[in-house]
Amino acid sequence: MLNNKITELLNIDYPIIQAPMAGGISTTALVSSVSNYGGLGMIGAGYMNAIQTRDQIREVRQTTSNNFGVNLFVPTEFQRSDEKIRLADDLLSPIREQLEIENSKISTPTYESLLESFNAQVDVVIEEKVPICSFTFGIPNLEIINRLKQHNIIVIGTATTVSEAIEIERTGMDLIVVQGSEAGGHRGTFINDGQESLVGLMSLIPQVVDNVMIPVIAAGGIMDGRGLIASLCLGAKGVQMGTAFLTCMESGAHELHKEAILHSSEDQTVLTRAFSGKWARGVKNKFIKDLHEDERALPDFPIQNSLTQDIRKAASLQNNRDFMSLWSGQSPRLAKNQSVEMLMKKIVDEAIKIKNS
Amino acid sequence: MLNNKITELLNIDYPIIQAPMAGGISTTALVSSVSNYGGLGMIGAGYMNAIQTRDQIREVRQTTSNNFGVNLFVPTEFQRSDEKIRLADDLLSPIREQLEIENSKISTPTYESLLESFNAQVDVVIEEKVPICSFTFGIPNLEIINRLKQHNIIVIGTATTVSEAIEIERTGMDLIVVQGSEAGGHRGTFINDGQESLVGLMSLIPQVVDNVMIPVIAAGGIMDGRGLIASLCLGAKGVQMGTAFLTCMESGAHELHKEAILHSSEDQTVLTRAFSGKWARGVKNKFIKDLHEDERALPDFPIQNSLTQDIRKAASLQNNRDFMSLWSGQSPRLAKNQSVEMLMKKIVDEAIKIKNS
Repeated sequence: MLNNKITELLNIDYPIIQAPMAGGISTTALVSSVSNYGGLGMIGAGYMNAIQTRDQIREVRQTTSNNFGVNLFVPTEFQRSDEKIRLADDLLSPIREQLEIENSKISTPTYESLLESFNAQVDVVIEEKVPICSFTFGIPNLEIINRLKQHNIIVIGTATTVSEAIEIERTGMDLIVVQGSEAGGHRGTFINDGQESLVGLMSLIPQVVDNVMIPVIAAGGIMDGRGLIASLCLGAKGVQMGTAFLTCMESGAHELHKEAILHSSEDQTVLTRAFSGKWARGVKNKFIKDLHEDERALPDFPIQNSLTQDIRKAASLQNNRDFMSLWSGQSPRLAKNQSVEMLMKKIVDEAIKIKNS
Repeated sequence: MLNNKITELLNIDYPIIQAPMAGGISTTALVSSVSNYGGLGMIGAGYMNAIQTRDQIREVRQTTSNNFGVNLFVPTEFQRSDEKIRLADDLLSPIREQLEIENSKISTPTYESLLESFNAQVDVVIEEKVPICSFTFGIPNLEIINRLKQHNIIVIGTATTVSEAIEIERTGMDLIVVQGSEAGGHRGTFINDGQESLVGLMSLIPQVVDNVMIPVIAAGGIMDGRGLIASLCLGAKGVQMGTAFLTCMESGAHELHKEAILHSSEDQTVLTRAFSGKWARGVKNKFIKDLHEDERALPDFPIQNSLTQDIRKAASLQNNRDFMSLWSGQSPRLAKNQSVEMLMKKIVDEAIKIKNS
């Protein structure tokens, strides 16, 4: 009863996708374990270059013979404002001082450099014959989508509203991940970046499935068999889970990040622009609180992301959770530190039990 | 399979509660129809005095012999700031002018007067032997809860976080409505009024049911059999639906309010403080946009509510949707203009179909 169009299309046992978490969380061990235990492991290649992307694809291939996927960030044009960068520097300087970071020259990317890197990643996905490729932060151009499909690669888009889902379907992509307001990490919104795009899954799933023909995968706050079956009842064909896999033993998340989630509650995660210039949900900490008042005036993604990189890195090395990005969805009370095998087994057993009750 | 602890306790056929919508929406026709077709109709007595409350209870009694309930707003202490009232007046004056409202003297309530009125309403609920009484915006004092229970009245609280749910259970109430971020109308939050209390149902339901013993009713964005079954899978024992009943023929909502919802989409509802001083979700209109920038500086509930009363009333009489409060949850695409009988039948049929699939 957990087999459907999605498990068939993706050639997996259970309609469970591990959310591609960029920045070292989706380790090869995590991706391969998920695929080995019947789900779909996803490499979070958003912040990688083409070489790093190829390296991890090859590593994953050596540890699983099952299907897996790669997720890429679609570059979007952004404003470079010297005034905003000065504001960020004013706010970040005391933090750098506190963390004893040498004031090094920080380089910020250009749209053109990001696009070049993105195109090289797409080439790698095709050359390495990765079976599944998903995108967040926008829709790549049609030429790329068509090229991937010509190579029999299944293409997945990410939407936060019905309008975005309809746009994705129009491009000929195969599947849509719908990201509810419950989701941890970055918002995938690419049409209208207001509170209007923060739609809970109870509302988002049925309204999207009523308006598109291609299968829908639900993401946001789903942690167990209850969330899986509820999503299927609402009309989704599968789920994508981030936080649940982030606290697993195989994940590369910092131990303090895992601990923060394991000791957090649903009313301790907030949306912030402070880390990257793009709205993202994480456990509230000193960094988020300190920058809260000015966060709307900070530079756009990915400028702000580059500006905070040294801080996040130093905080991580110094085991200082005050300045780390502690991404989490709204269900931290349901998180456990366990193996991927155990998590997968529990989800499936619970789902079957609910379905048969 | 739709029978459970809640249908037994409330003595209803289906675990479907009509959300008590104050301000004339929960007409006697709406409340009675819901109860007559197997759900639980609820009188939204939040803005009524004791006499009005008694009148509607008696009206409902004449049109249904089934169980129904009354919802009361728990008065909470609030700040009265002349500076905030001046700001509101500055912003509201041009709107009053546009609507050609005579500048009449507006009276704002005191906490003491609200408390007195609330206590008189509680007396009415007991005297009229209303079988169910629910509360929003807080927890009434223990003496009231105990008095209601001594009279065999089932008492329901409203929570938006796990902490609030635990508080409600501690007082001895019988049931908890958990209000997800998807919900239309006023937020029931009473502990911490930040974005932290905006939790989607996919996250909120399982985390609450894991932390309380009493049955949980899910509210927010639920419109059909899919939402009902999904809520039950997540651990709720029933649902409370507002927007789905608001657009029904029997509801007293203004025709333009119903039309606004019927032509709206999930990305057109927003949270605003502009109408009442308390965060509430509705379809974005000119009033919300005009006051958006200053909304956090406006007077507290219920002061702001009193200040905008003449505007909402005039807008309603003049059929001007720009200045009406168009409360709606995040699932307006699923709303239909139909009879309560038809809505109830469709929910139940769809739920059974999903459950058996």
